[in-house]
Amino acid sequence: MARVLDDETIRGVLSMPDVVKTMRLACRERAHGSLYAPPRWSLDVPDGSLVITAGAAMGVGTMGFRAYETLGRGPGHEGLVAVWNAESGTFDGCFVGHRVGLFRTAGINGVAAEALAPADARTLAVLGTGPQARQGARAVCAVRDIDVVRVFSPTAEHRETFAERMPGKLDLPDGAVTAHDDPEPVVRGADVVYVATDSEEPVLEADWLDAGAHVHTLGPKWADGHELPVEVFDRADVVATDSLPQVEAYEDAGGFVVREWDERVVELGDLVVDGVGRDPDALTVFCSVGLAGTEVVLGDRYLRELERKGN
Amino acid sequence: MARVLDDETIRGVLSMPDVVKTMRLACRERAHGSLYAPPRWSLDVPDGSLVITAGAAMGVGTMGFRAYETLGRGPGHEGLVAVWNAESGTFDGCFVGHRVGLFRTAGINGVAAEALAPADARTLAVLGTGPQARQGARAVCAVRDIDVVRVFSPTAEHRETFAERMPGKLDLPDGAVTAHDDPEPVVRGADVVYVATDSEEPVLEADWLDAGAHVHTLGPKWADGHELPVEVFDRADVVATDSLPQVEAYEDAGGFVVREWDERVVELGDLVVDGVGRDPDALTVFCSVGLAGTEVVLGDRYLRELERKGN
Repeated sequence: MARVLDDETIRGVLSMPDVVKTMRLACRERAHGSLYAPPRWSLDVPDGSLVITAGAAMGVGTMGFRAYETLGRGPGHEGLVAVWNAESGTFDGCFVGHRVGLFRTAGINGVAAEALAPADARTLAVLGTGPQARQGARAVCAVRDIDVVRVFSPTAEHRETFAERMPGKLDLPDGAVTAHDDPEPVVRGADVVYVATDSEEPVLEADWLDAGAHVHTLGPKWADGHELPVEVFDRADVVATDSLPQVEAYEDAGGFVVREWDERVVELGDLVVDGVGRDPDALTVFCSVGLAGTEVVLGDRYLRELERKGN
Repeated sequence: MARVLDDETIRGVLSMPDVVKTMRLACRERAHGSLYAPPRWSLDVPDGSLVITAGAAMGVGTMGFRAYETLGRGPGHEGLVAVWNAESGTFDGCFVGHRVGLFRTAGINGVAAEALAPADARTLAVLGTGPQARQGARAVCAVRDIDVVRVFSPTAEHRETFAERMPGKLDLPDGAVTAHDDPEPVVRGADVVYVATDSEEPVLEADWLDAGAHVHTLGPKWADGHELPVEVFDRADVVATDSLPQVEAYEDAGGFVVREWDERVVELGDLVVDGVGRDPDALTVFCSVGLAGTEVVLGDRYLRELERKGN
């Protein structure tokens, strides 16, 4: 039978550099046209939706989907990633939980940081303290020699727990991660700013950002609700995303924060393949939308690694 | 964590009458508008597709999908049925394998036989010997007092194995199921004719059918490839299906065998709710297309039964 895995059984199976490497491969497939990622599909019920985001990566030969619902969060609210062999059609396995989806997002942001962040970036600002913020910090540290991390959360317990626990996860000495109750000193002077909040109000001001900073936005990106101020996009020299069609789909649902997205926004896969000649004073922004199919590529990678390890 | 089940772990959990009863409930929800069944969705890869058929039944409060691929058959080719609570959004469980999909089809055909077959039907003709033919025979026997079963397959081993093994599955005495190398004597005089083949050429002739017979067709139903001859539909007094929108979708893909399907074909759910006043000489046909969402309703029923039994 196909393997069935959960968040616990895949814990520690892949390192964050492995995850980033796998997502880099997926981005390359995207640029070369061998990653098929049709629009998301949903089944609507009265209080929410069941959403399916499917894809196939013909380079690695895998296909499948992630399914998740929008009705609630917490215990019992688990997603599903299912993986088939795209050539033979055999069902290889599925993952119940959230880890594959979480890690693929972190991994894609790692690829973006590798492509866009200053090569000598040392200071990372993190706004938000949830799973995306924690794994995103790991992904940035996997591709840059970060030695200072500053975190902001309006909730004291959240930011203090982050500052206490993350050094061990980031291979940094105790004290290398500091907690702040004001986002301004967190963002000012940072080389990389990682914004992963649920806020629909901007959580920073554009003029706090250094020339040459690189910014990630994982949270709300709607025209009428966004965690980054519009001025950041106006100022940015490069605005990239992992999926232009998924950005385009925002237009059908209230609009994307970058109003001229179709002309200005470039795809990460193209940046990875073509390389980026980065001006040291360029402000760059990565809009993370969750390229469909990448969960399947990462799930496939987990299955291969488990097989290799004889698990 | 959500429960993960396979074909072995659900073997024997529900009786065929339980399966038919569950599918009758789903058909009633369909008629009352509380079974949501959007069109099938597929991810296309070079050699085939990954197909997702989703649905929600708000009466029983469940939502989910079945996923299967069209690349191949045999070991390793397993489908997936995943079930969420449609009100709270919790992920209740998933099924790896084929049994849920197979049984829901048998169960729907059981509902159709209950609605359309002569009340005093005693003789069942089965054309085909695969899993659909075997479980379909069980479903018909669950709703009618069948005491004679005749089976046709062009392959001697298949029809003989069917005749040998099925009496025990159908609560019939040894010898009650007879194997034939010619479909004509199988069909002639039968009250119910269950056609479950892969044939794109008609496997019977319309004039073999008795006035008053009831016919099921599970196999190909394309305008240019069908297991039942067009004359059967022309002669039929009632042509029913489990999903008119799914029949309509055939039109986009080469056409449905019943050319005036939109005027003549009725939905099983409506027959179940409204009842059928059956003329003893009426020829009735049920076109089984696999109403989306019914796999989820059956999966939910398995999960509840396992919970009730403390498994």
